[in-house]
Amino acid sequence: MTIFYPNGKPYINQSPPKKKTAKVNFANRGMTLEEDLNMTNQYYLERDIAVIHKKPTPVQIVNVDYPRRSAAKITEAYFRKASTTDYNGLYRGHYIDFEAKETRSKTVLPLKNFHEHQVEHMKKVKSHGGICFVIIKFTTSGEIFLLDAEHLIKYWSEQKSGGEKSIPKAIIKGQGYPIPQGYMPRIDYLTIVDRVYL
Amino acid sequence: MTIFYPNGKPYINQSPPKKKTAKVNFANRGMTLEEDLNMTNQYYLERDIAVIHKKPTPVQIVNVDYPRRSAAKITEAYFRKASTTDYNGLYRGHYIDFEAKETRSKTVLPLKNFHEHQVEHMKKVKSHGGICFVIIKFTTSGEIFLLDAEHLIKYWSEQKSGGEKSIPKAIIKGQGYPIPQGYMPRIDYLTIVDRVYL
Repeated sequence: MTIFYPNGKPYINQSPPKKKTAKVNFANRGMTLEEDLNMTNQYYLERDIAVIHKKPTPVQIVNVDYPRRSAAKITEAYFRKASTTDYNGLYRGHYIDFEAKETRSKTVLPLKNFHEHQVEHMKKVKSHGGICFVIIKFTTSGEIFLLDAEHLIKYWSEQKSGGEKSIPKAIIKGQGYPIPQGYMPRIDYLTIVDRVYL
Repeated sequence: MTIFYPNGKPYINQSPPKKKTAKVNFANRGMTLEEDLNMTNQYYLERDIAVIHKKPTPVQIVNVDYPRRSAAKITEAYFRKASTTDYNGLYRGHYIDFEAKETRSKTVLPLKNFHEHQVEHMKKVKSHGGICFVIIKFTTSGEIFLLDAEHLIKYWSEQKSGGEKSIPKAIIKGQGYPIPQGYMPRIDYLTIVDRVYL
């Protein structure tokens, strides 16, 4: 049944069908760390601690259907590579920028988790006075570390001239900082930012 | 013909088919101002002046096909409302955040161009020490202005208690700043940021 507004226009439910959502499977594309970080950022936002958001997944839209009485439906689109990191925002007047990665490895963070554009972006952020780091989760042990982007940048450039293809966990532990985990907030990385950068 | 890498794996062209792209028609959803701002931000990035990007369009992905030999294809997705502004980044150590809007009106910027989440986000950015504004293009005259977010926030809150449904152009001219336009960069808004905020 079509419901009409007082002005005579039909009511169109703009929400996409919810029941299908559960089908989407991003198969280990880091959903757990991502979900925990989203909840952490939500906590920071609600408590008025910081304004940090995950950027939407970049998608190249090729075809869109405009059905008469429902929301526009994208029928053909493709994932694009991000040209920046996934997270950025504002904390205590400072620009914050980071990437989050999970690995099942117990000993290293493979550099193949990153791509050139992201590392170039991190270099730029650091050179323009932003705070830039990587949040790394070792899923086997559950440990999460904050590592300043300079280390990733160094390993990345060394890799190009035949260096290691990953960052050893020992370096991440030695040069980085373990992030306290809890219920609320889940991954309290701003306590580390306070200590290390501010 | 399938081409193989030296390691025996088939070469898969990850690029989506290009020829279809031209079909997409976002019918006056502000492409001109957006394109000009993207080129301006690209110019700032290449000249190492600032690191400012447009966020990807937020999309809720419902179904994805994973064909064997080509890129994952999104077959069902819907546009979502952005929970923040479209543009943010870093300039001379400062967090920058803005929204860009075009209007065909000659006399006002209708507030229906914004939504609650965006205005709330702008309030947060200002209260946490970020630089936050709106870039407004009057398409008929071609004029482009930078207006600090405080004016939008004020009009937005007044609208809720029965105030005007738009910001008069006279206010935008009086309280805002005309942005110089040229070939490179197209819309040199950072000259205004220098003058007004830094």
